[in-house]
Amino acid sequence: MDKIPILRMGSFLLVTIQVDLYDRLALNLENDLVQMVYQTGARGVLIDISAVSIVDSFMGRILGNIASMTRVLDAETVVVGMQPAVAITLIELGLSLKGVHTALDVERGMALLQTQYGLHTQSADDDVDELE
Amino acid sequence: MDKIPILRMGSFLLVTIQVDLYDRLALNLENDLVQMVYQTGARGVLIDISAVSIVDSFMGRILGNIASMTRVLDAETVVVGMQPAVAITLIELGLSLKGVHTALDVERGMALLQTQYGLHTQSADDDVDELE
Repeated sequence: MDKIPILRMGSFLLVTIQVDLYDRLALNLENDLVQMVYQTGARGVLIDISAVSIVDSFMGRILGNIASMTRVLDAETVVVGMQPAVAITLIELGLSLKGVHTALDVERGMALLQTQYGLHTQSADDDVDELE
Repeated sequence: MDKIPILRMGSFLLVTIQVDLYDRLALNLENDLVQMVYQTGARGVLIDISAVSIVDSFMGRILGNIASMTRVLDAETVVVGMQPAVAITLIELGLSLKGVHTALDVERGMALLQTQYGLHTQSADDDVDELE
């Protein structure tokens, strides 16, 4: 597999990372995401890493790159579903994921985008309701 | 990896299949999905196979099993994002995915669940609007 599928949900794009991001796969993901943001006018990108048990400095940098790339296209990136062990590893590696927003799960990620960045989508409203 | 992440979005569950479903992985997915439907009271399950380029009879049966299992728990399953080549292969294999609903993408899948099965979620409304 040399592509990670990007799902469009309203004004958000959703990516679920289930495999290790080797170089080409990561570059493809960056390119595809930027293209999708441009084509769909998405305002938010949600990257689910709940299936990722190991995050190295490479992946940390990729996530940072994606957040920066989408931001200049006026889309905020939220990394969701990070496992506790991954959070520990990240900090021990000295990676604080600067510029990357995080949330506990997809619903909270959508709620974050909607409340903090005023990205109004029905789905986000839906999630906010459920979180209350 | 021995688990495929299941994302909760409102009253829907979303699964993105990006790897080949070998036996244990498929069984885990079945178990996890049924558990999630039971715990979350989800009314719809969306399975995205846009990253799947080869579907054999085993995977066809798994999809059918999941659809049947979730249906008895009052949740409809929609397979979305099937590639044209996969559709051709399925029929040539004599697999018509009986009992499995399909849609072109996640948004249309949500719209299907909402319009045909009256599963009202804001996200589905959102998608319906965009499809019009």
